[in-house]
This record gives sequence, structure tokens and C-alpha cells, in this order.
Amino acid sequence: MIVNIPLISVGVAVIGLLIAFMLYKRINRIKINNPTVADITKQIQDGAMAFLKAEYRYLSVFIVVVAALLLWNNGQQTALAFLAGATASVIAGFSGMRAATSANGRTAMAAAESGQAKALEVSYNGGAVMGLSVGGLGLLGISLMAMWLGTGSAVQNIAGFGMGASSIALFARVGGGIYTKAADIGADLVGKIEAGIPEDDPRNPGVIADNVGDNVGDVAGMGADIFESFVGSIIAAMVIAESSGMGGANNADWVILPIFLALVGYGASIIGVFSIHLLKGGDPGAALRNTTFIGAGLFWLGGWFGIGYVGLETGTDPMMAVIAGSIVGILIGLVTEYYTGIDPVMGIKPKAIPYIGEMSKTGPATNAIAGLSVGMKSTFLPIILICVGIYCANEFMMNGRTETAFGLYGIAMAAMGMLATVGVTMTVDAYGPVADNAGGIAEMSKLGPEVREITDGLDTIGNTTAAIGKGFAIGSAALTALALFAAFKIAVEANLGVGETLSLSLADPMVVIGLLIGGSLPFVVAAMTMTSVGKAAGEMVVEIRRQFREIDGLLEGREGVKPDSQRCIEISTQAALKEMILPGVVAISAPVIVGFTLGASALGGLLAGALVTGVLMALFMANAGGAWDNTKKAIEQGRIEGAKKGDATHDAAIIGDTIGDPFKDTSGPSMNILIKLMSIVAVVIAPSLTLTGLL
Amino acid sequence: MIVNIPLISVGVAVIGLLIAFMLYKRINRIKINNPTVADITKQIQDGAMAFLKAEYRYLSVFIVVVAALLLWNNGQQTALAFLAGATASVIAGFSGMRAATSANGRTAMAAAESGQAKALEVSYNGGAVMGLSVGGLGLLGISLMAMWLGTGSAVQNIAGFGMGASSIALFARVGGGIYTKAADIGADLVGKIEAGIPEDDPRNPGVIADNVGDNVGDVAGMGADIFESFVGSIIAAMVIAESSGMGGANNADWVILPIFLALVGYGASIIGVFSIHLLKGGDPGAALRNTTFIGAGLFWLGGWFGIGYVGLETGTDPMMAVIAGSIVGILIGLVTEYYTGIDPVMGIKPKAIPYIGEMSKTGPATNAIAGLSVGMKSTFLPIILICVGIYCANEFMMNGRTETAFGLYGIAMAAMGMLATVGVTMTVDAYGPVADNAGGIAEMSKLGPEVREITDGLDTIGNTTAAIGKGFAIGSAALTALALFAAFKIAVEANLGVGETLSLSLADPMVVIGLLIGGSLPFVVAAMTMTSVGKAAGEMVVEIRRQFREIDGLLEGREGVKPDSQRCIEISTQAALKEMILPGVVAISAPVIVGFTLGASALGGLLAGALVTGVLMALFMANAGGAWDNTKKAIEQGRIEGAKKGDATHDAAIIGDTIGDPFKDTSGPSMNILIKLMSIVAVVIAPSLTLTGLL
Repeated sequence: MIVNIPLISVGVAVIGLLIAFMLYKRINRIKINNPTVADITKQIQDGAMAFLKAEYRYLSVFIVVVAALLLWNNGQQTALAFLAGATASVIAGFSGMRAATSANGRTAMAAAESGQAKALEVSYNGGAVMGLSVGGLGLLGISLMAMWLGTGSAVQNIAGFGMGASSIALFARVGGGIYTKAADIGADLVGKIEAGIPEDDPRNPGVIADNVGDNVGDVAGMGADIFESFVGSIIAAMVIAESSGMGGANNADWVILPIFLALVGYGASIIGVFSIHLLKGGDPGAALRNTTFIGAGLFWLGGWFGIGYVGLETGTDPMMAVIAGSIVGILIGLVTEYYTGIDPVMGIKPKAIPYIGEMSKTGPATNAIAGLSVGMKSTFLPIILICVGIYCANEFMMNGRTETAFGLYGIAMAAMGMLATVGVTMTVDAYGPVADNAGGIAEMSKLGPEVREITDGLDTIGNTTAAIGKGFAIGSAALTALALFAAFKIAVEANLGVGETLSLSLADPMVVIGLLIGGSLPFVVAAMTMTSVGKAAGEMVVEIRRQFREIDGLLEGREGVKPDSQRCIEISTQAALKEMILPGVVAISAPVIVGFTLGASALGGLLAGALVTGVLMALFMANAGGAWDNTKKAIEQGRIEGAKKGDATHDAAIIGDTIGDPFKDTSGPSMNILIKLMSIVAVVIAPSLTLTGLL
Repeated sequence: MIVNIPLISVGVAVIGLLIAFMLYKRINRIKINNPTVADITKQIQDGAMAFLKAEYRYLSVFIVVVAALLLWNNGQQTALAFLAGATASVIAGFSGMRAATSANGRTAMAAAESGQAKALEVSYNGGAVMGLSVGGLGLLGISLMAMWLGTGSAVQNIAGFGMGASSIALFARVGGGIYTKAADIGADLVGKIEAGIPEDDPRNPGVIADNVGDNVGDVAGMGADIFESFVGSIIAAMVIAESSGMGGANNADWVILPIFLALVGYGASIIGVFSIHLLKGGDPGAALRNTTFIGAGLFWLGGWFGIGYVGLETGTDPMMAVIAGSIVGILIGLVTEYYTGIDPVMGIKPKAIPYIGEMSKTGPATNAIAGLSVGMKSTFLPIILICVGIYCANEFMMNGRTETAFGLYGIAMAAMGMLATVGVTMTVDAYGPVADNAGGIAEMSKLGPEVREITDGLDTIGNTTAAIGKGFAIGSAALTALALFAAFKIAVEANLGVGETLSLSLADPMVVIGLLIGGSLPFVVAAMTMTSVGKAAGEMVVEIRRQFREIDGLLEGREGVKPDSQRCIEISTQAALKEMILPGVVAISAPVIVGFTLGASALGGLLAGALVTGVLMALFMANAGGAWDNTKKAIEQGRIEGAKKGDATHDAAIIGDTIGDPFKDTSGPSMNILIKLMSIVAVVIAPSLTLTGLL
């Protein structure tokens, strides 16, 4: 190459982060003139920041212990990379959270004082701080690593960076998911069903915790998730390239290419984010979508023409894989929307929601059966699309080449196709919870129906774009995990003794044993996280019931009587902190235990087994949860014939929605991270493994 | 070998079948002196036989079409073997069903007239007709095939026999499962919940259909399931042995050994079945268990000492694998019992049921979340046990040998360890629904509480033994499918051209694509069958509501007013027949389509993927369903503190139980057959496949 790509990347990343900081400052300059709004905003922000601080304090112990183990087993470079990855993830989560919890109340105020366009801008900017932080910190971290480690064999230590990011991500996702759903379920079960008061009613002691939870789960949790996907796909490609020695004399170009693509994607994202200023006046849904399209389009063009321009001797085959990945991601999103949405998708009318609605008429049991079956059925098309993505990525990259590493590298490229423009896609993802929270604050502060209408409108758009975001999240997770699996294989093979070969054959009993154990882990982790949500929600129910019973005048809404929201926040915080430990420990220790006792073949099987069931469970749980949620909404909007808000069918649908809560917001999303975390742990320990372990 | 094992096997099988016929005659000699009992027994038998006949009429079309395709693609021997396998399965299902539906009313009469010991004997004999038919027809069929095909390369055509048996099994399981649960859910939702009348109340129009369903699902469906597992494990071992040429000059001994073990197991089973006459006076639970222990003990001894005695030059290593398989099967059963049962298992108190009970106190949503998480969590230990079984079977058989085929053969032996004594284990399995039906008939005929007490006691014992039976069913399915997978691999390799090798490496993109598609199929089939149950139950609800509304005096129980049970039977029958088609077609066509278009590597991946998720989904669904069911029962028995029959907690538990109905009795059990059917289809088409298909 003729330019120093890592150095330029550092520069662009720093510029992006400065922009994020300026956006944050600009949000904070908006005055909140309504004291109730100011008070609630502060309560939510304090609750969220308190949780994050407590969470990171817990995790610092874990990080130090793991770093010490890595120092002992892998040496200084991996340990330092691990620390850097974990720190970058923490900073991204922190800054995104701070911005989102500042923007929510200000979005409500903007809706009240200046109308929709201004409210859209504030909430979008709130999301953009997260998006630009995630993208910028990822690019910065990886580039600094590359400058430090070079393009030779030391590159493998960059896997430590991914492991740091993935570890934080799993804890953040699980902890955040437990927090938000414990509060949500608890507040709904007692408030909406038992006491019969509306959602977001300020009398409900769990409502602040519920709003804190939206930020903790959907902003910080998702941010950490996307951060590790983004760096994971880059790392997988770099490790495959370096370990396989693919491309011979041009090997260094293949190692650096992922950083170049991330650079182009980030630059394109910044422009995409800024384009909201030109677009905000029109249809807000189109505006949001168009910012991501501008980002994607510029990325494709920049990548296609830039590769040759900067002198990377790789050709444009990788861009074919990138584009294939993007298209697959969009299609998975559309399929998701078909199975979980109410409105037609490209002219095709969804059948799932009316079907679950129909089945709700015979009660909660048939509603549950219908939702579960829709979730299971919805796995098939996305899986086929992922397979098409794998096939195309492999074919495009092989393109007459003979080294199989090129095909595996192509799979990482396809994942990058979904992740390189993370700066703008994450912006749109994080915008959703900001708009949602703004609606809650408007309701609690009694800002009136016109304001609520604007915030509801912004919220609805967020939900639609979120479906595409989920498609990208699951699709990229599958491809990234697969690329990391390939990196693991190549890394093990690079360290084999003479005459040794790594068997990953399905006819090898050890591989099958690994496959079965790996397959069961997503079920176990899903079970753990669901149990945690159930337990914590139970505690919340007891506490909210107690407050309604013991606080005189609360339920009647007597002037000046306030619920003890703090107690509910504490319950969610404590439950989340306690319950996030075990799933995280399982995810990190399983590959270590299997790798060292049963050997590298069994560990390979484990990763493949976890990949298969992890992706399926992620799709199943996310889509079942989404479909249940929207069935309830469809009934409330009068779109299911013969059913309406408040009748027995609606009650059945509320129960289904509650079953779906941990599915779609806790257990389902943690599957993605689980499979990537296990894969990257395997890559990190690959050089220390023997073929048969202790057997 | 020094004796003609297939010939002796034919003889012993015929003796066993004659005994089954005599037992059937003996049951039928019992007079039913109570006209109501006689009437209800006849209605159930007529309904069940009508369904079976209609089902087999539908399937005859399918069988002819597939036989023609096999004739064209594989030739005459496979096609004939397929016809024989399908026919044998049909006969087994038919005779077992006839016996069970004769024995149920007579068990109720025996309980009323002669007490518990006689009632136990009648119901046990009812099950024994099924057990001895399944074992005898399996042994007879396989032995005749072996006499016809010899021990040379023609042996591969025996896979057709397994495919015939598996095809019928899938349709029977799915059709039976839909039938029974549509009737059960429909009758419960309207009868128990809406109308508030007890279970098995003769006023409920769905009650006869529900009882028919117990036979159609639990007797015929399970019989076909076990039949195909039994022959599948034998066939897998024979094909592995012959295709690999393992054992060199003694190859024919390895090919025949599985038949010898099946022969010993069947002989041991006959003795086990007869021992009920000596045991029936004591504790009935112990009596039932002891008949299976006698069968297993005699089989182990007979196998161990018989191998050398008949001159098979294989040594006793296979018996080590057999015994390992048996022990694993028993342990899986105990784990199942731990997660789904109320009583302590070997002194360890189960936690799952009290936990789901506790979670039922906050309503159906938390009950559902708890049940789902218990089901998911319960997959882990059985998976570990299956892995231990695979490891031990492989190690015991390798035992210094170098051909890897021995290890794979060992896995088939472990499966045989769970299946060879099918004559007596299936007897105990089929006894359960007979006792259950007897209770229902006693209730409907108002035979009084003393009779009900006896039948309830017999029913409870059946439930406990059923848990062990389920452990055997899932464990043996996993091992059989794995053995068939190995047979597929060896069969493909036996037909490769020079320089071709079959890649089953997880680093091969085509294998991964197959793995992902295969993994999604159990989710799709589970979704289909759940949807079918939901739809059919919905129709049933509408019909039962209509009858309660329109038939004057029915709900009040006015003398002489009878429900139109026939209409409910028709709804279940039509739904089952219509809805069983698609899952069956998916299961059979998926390996064919993937094999011929994407090639043998992708098909190998598909089988492995389906194996992993199929076993996990089978465990998840069966155990979640069982746990929900028993939570409801525990509340009814006053064993959940703070909850009792009829309160809100009990209502929540009933909803959970209903969600679990299709889980445990329709979708869950069909997983086992699905993975075996796809594997055996792959074995059958293996010789016609190319490595890359159309790509």
C-alpha cells in the first residue's frame, strides 16, 4: 500500500469522536424549561449512570483477573489488547448512555416547544453520539493495535482486543436485558393488569426503573453488542489473513484491508449522520432510512474505488463479498419484518400477526403456542439467506484462487458489509430508545396529547428501522462467528507439530461430542437469563404491590404523594448485577474447559454447535417476542377483527407479550454475543491447545 | 459363525408373535358385563381403528409413490425392502392398537370385579401385545432381509427397510400427536375451563375423541417410533460393518452380530413379559420395573456369553458398548425425572416443579417463562450423558483397533443397548395409555371411587416408567441417528471415484451451509406441528362450544341427552390426516433436495445440524411439557405451598400445561423420528450422490 492506513484511520476516528463530543455538548445546551421533565430526566439519567458505574465496577474485577490469566498464558501483548478492548467498550457504552439519557427529556421538550423536525433532530443526535462513539472507538482501537503489532505474526494478539470487547458486551447485554425486563414486566403486571392504570403512569413505582432499563438494555447493551461485532469481523479477517499467509507477497495488504474498509465505512457514516440536517424537514421515517442509505452507498463506492487508489493489491473481489453481505442483511431484516410486523413488507401482507391474534381468541395458551410456532418457523428463511451469503462470499473471493483461506476471508468481508457503516446504523438503532423514552417522559410529565403524538410517531419509525437493525445484528453475528471459527482453525493449524492435522470432520467422535455440547450451551444460557428475568420480575411485583398497599393515597393519585422509585431501581440493579455473572462465566469458561480437556477438535465442534443453535435461538426468540409484542399492539389499534383493547383476547395477547419480553430483549440478543465470545476465546487460546487435550 | 442366526431369529420372532396373538385372544375373552363400559370401549376402539385405517389408506399412496421412485433410483431390492419395512410398521401399529383398545375397558372391569392384581395383568398384557409385536416384527423383518440379501454388498439395500419403517413412523407420530392434542386441548379448554365440568365427564363431546387420541398418539404413534428406532440401530450397524469391510475375513460376523443381539434381546424380553405373572401380586410399580430389569439382565448375560457360543468372531467388546448405552439411557431417564417429576430421584429432591409452581403465582406469563427455561436447562445433562455414551462406545470398540469404523459401529451398539429389549420396554410404555384410558372409562361409566383409585394407581406407575422410556427414546434416537450418519458417510465413500474424498470438515463452507439448513429443520417441523395442533384445537373448541349451546339439556346432564362425540372424532381425524402430510414431505424431501443439488458434503452437514438441534428440541419440548404437566398436578395434590386446585395459581398452571401439550406429545416426539428418517433417507440415496451435486 502507498499510504499509512492505520495512521489515517486514527486521525479519522479522532475527528469522528470529536464530532460525537460536539453533538453531546449541543444536546446539553438545550434547556429543559419544565421542572417535571427536568426531574424525571435527571432520575432516569442518575439511575442509568448509577447502574453503569456499578456494573463496570463489578466487571473491573473480572477484567483484571482475565488479563492476568492472559498475561500468564498468552503474554503481554494479548493481555494489553484485552484491556484495551474492554476499556474501549466501556467508554463507548458510557458516552452513548450519557448522551441518550440527556437527549430523551430534551426530545420531549423539543416536541412540545418546536415540533417534530426539531424533536427528530435532538433524538437523532442523541443516537449519533452512540453511533459515532462505537464506530470511532472501534476504528481507533483496531488501528492503534495494528500500528503497535504490525502485520506480522504478532497480529494474532489483536484477538485479545476482540475478547475484551466481547466479554464486556455479554455482561452488558445480559445485565442490561435483565434490568430492563425485570422492571418492564414488574411494572406492567402490577400496574397495567392488577391496578388497571396506564403504561408510564407516574403513580407506578416501577416506571422510572422501566425507563432506566430501556437505556441500560437498548442503548448500553446494544452498543456494546454492536461494538464487539464490528471489531470482531475486522479481527477475524485480519487473523485469517495473517495466519494463513494468504496472498503470499501481498499478505500485508490482506491484513490491512479490513481496517481500510472500516475507515471508509466510518467516513461514510459521518457524512450519513450529518445528512439528517438536510433531510429532517421531510418524512421522518424516510429521513432516517436515507441517512443509512447514504452511508452505505458512500461506503460501497469508497471501498470499490478506494482499494486501488490507496494501493492495496487485493482487487475488488472483497467488495463483492461486502455487498453480498449488506444485501443479505437487508433481506434478513425484511423477513424479520414480515414475521413480526403488522404492515405489508414490499407489498406482501404479513400473516403471522393476524394468525396469533386469531389464536388469542381461545386464550393465552393458544396465543403462546401460536407465538412459539411463528418464532420457530421464522428461522428458516434467514438461515437460507445466511447460507446464500456464505456461498456468495466464498465464491466471490475464491474466484479462481486455490487457497481456501480466501473463501473464509470472504465470509468475514460479508460480515463487514453489515457492520462497516456502524456509525450510522447504530445511530438509528440508538435513536429508537431515545424516542421511546421521550414518549414516556411526555406521558409522565403530562405534556399533553399533541406532544405525545409527535413522540409516538418518532417511536414508531424507530421500531421499523429496528427490525432491519436486528437483521444486521443476527446476520453479522452468524458470519462473524463463522469467520472467527475459521480464524480459530487456521490459528490452531499454524501451531501444529510435524505430522499433526486438526480434524474437524463430522465423522470424528470428538468433533461430534463438541458439536453436541456446543449446541446445548445457547439453550443453557437462554434458560439462565430467562430464569433471572423471571426471578427479578417476581421481586419487582412484590415491591410494587407493597407500595400500592402501604403508601397512603398513591394509587388514588393524591397530590404530592410519590412512589418510592428508588427502591425499584435498586431491585433491578441488584438483580442485573448478580445474575449477569453466571452466563458470562459459562460463555468464557466453556471453550477453555473443552479446549484444554477434550482438545482442539472437540473445541472446533463446540464452536460449530453453538453457532448453529445460537443463531437459531436468536432468530426464534427475537421473532417470537417481536410477533407477540406486535399482536398486542395490533389488537390495541383495532387491527385484529373481533378483538379490542381490554377484552379477553387482548388479555391473552398481553400475556404472550410478557412471555416474549425476556425472549426478545434478554435471552435472544445474548445469543449473538455468546457465539462470538466463545469463538474469540477459542482464537485467543488456539496457540496453547493440543489436538486431544488431556485425553 | 456356526449356527444360522437369521433362521433362528425368524423362528423366535414367529414364536413371540404367536404369544402376542394368544395374549390378545386372552384379553378378548374377558367379558364386559357393564353396558356403559362396553359402549364406551367400543366407541374408542371404533374411533381409533377408523383413524388408523384412514391413515394407512392415505399412506398407501405415499408408499407406492416412494417405492416407485426407489425402484427407479435404487433398484428392486431397496424398493422391496422399503415396502416390507412400511408394511411391518403398519402391522405392528394395527395389532398393538387393537389390543390396547380392547384392554382398556377390560382393565376397568377387572378393577371393578377382581381388584388391582387382575387389572394390572390385563393392562400389562394389553401393552405386551404391542411390545411383542414391535420386537417380533422388527426381528422377523430384519432376519428375512438378511436371509434374502446375504452379508455382501447387497446388505446396503436393507436401509430401504428402515426407510419404510421411519416414514410410517413420522406420519404416525405426527398424525397421532395432532389427533390426541387437538382433542385434549379442545375438550379441556371448553370443558374444564369454560364450562367448569371435570375431566373425562361424559357430557363433554370431546371426551371420546380425547380417549381415542391417547391410543392413536401414545400407542400407535409411539409403537411406530420405537419400531423404527429398533430396526434403525440394527441397520446402521449392519451397513457400517458391510460398507467399511471392517474385521476383514470376519466381516460377515460383524454384519450379523446386530441380528444376534436383537434375537437375544427379544428372547430375554419374552421371558421378562411372562415374569409379570410371578410379580403381579406385589407392588405394581416394582413389578413393572422388574419385568424390564429381568429382560435387560438376561439380554446382557445372553449377549456376553452367547457371542462366543454361537461362534461369532467379534469378541465381547460390542457388549461393553451395549451396556454403556443401556446405562446412559437409564441415567437420561433419571435426569428427565429430576426435571419433570415431583418426587425425589435417588434421594435428590427436584427443584423444577416447585420453581414453576412459585412462578405460577404471578400468573400465566411467568409460569410460561419458567416452564420454557426449565425445558431449556434440562437439555444440558442428557447431552453430556449422550456424549459420554458416544465416547465410551467408541473407546470400548476401538480398544487397540485401527479402523475407525469400529468406533462408529460401537455407537450403533450403544443404541442397541437401549433398544434390543424393546419387547419388554415397549410393553411397559404401551401399558401406560391402557391404564390411563381405563381410568377415563371408569370415570365416564361412573364405576365409583374405589375403581378409580385402582386405575389412578396403575396410571401413576405408568407415568414414572414412561420417564425412563422417554430417556431411552431420545438417547437411542441420538445414537441411532449418529450411527446412520456414519453409515451414510461410509456408503458415500464406498462409491467415490478415484481421487475423490468426501469432505465433512466444519471448515468447508458447503458443510457449514448444510449444517445451518439442517439445524433449522427441527425448528420448522416443530413449528408446523404446533400450528396444526393449535388450528385443530381451535376447530374443536368451536364445535364443543356449539354443542353445549345447541344441544338442549347437555350441560345440565339431563337423562338420555348425549353429546355428538362422532363429530369431534371427525374433526380430529380430518385435521390429523391433513396436517401430517407436510412435515413428512419436508423430512423426506429435504435430504433428497440438498443431497442432489448441493452434494454429499452439504447433506452430511445437514444430517449433523438436524441431529444437534433435533435432539435438543426433543429434550427441551418433552421436558418443558412434562414439567408444566406435573406442576399442575402438584398444585392439585396440594404440594405447592400457597396454591390449591381452582385458585389463580392453578389457572396459570393449567395454561402452562396446555402450552406443553403439543410440546410433549406432538412436536417433541416427532423430533426423534425426523432426525432418524432424514439420516436413513441419506443412507438410501448415498450411492447415487456426487460430492458437489449440481454446483
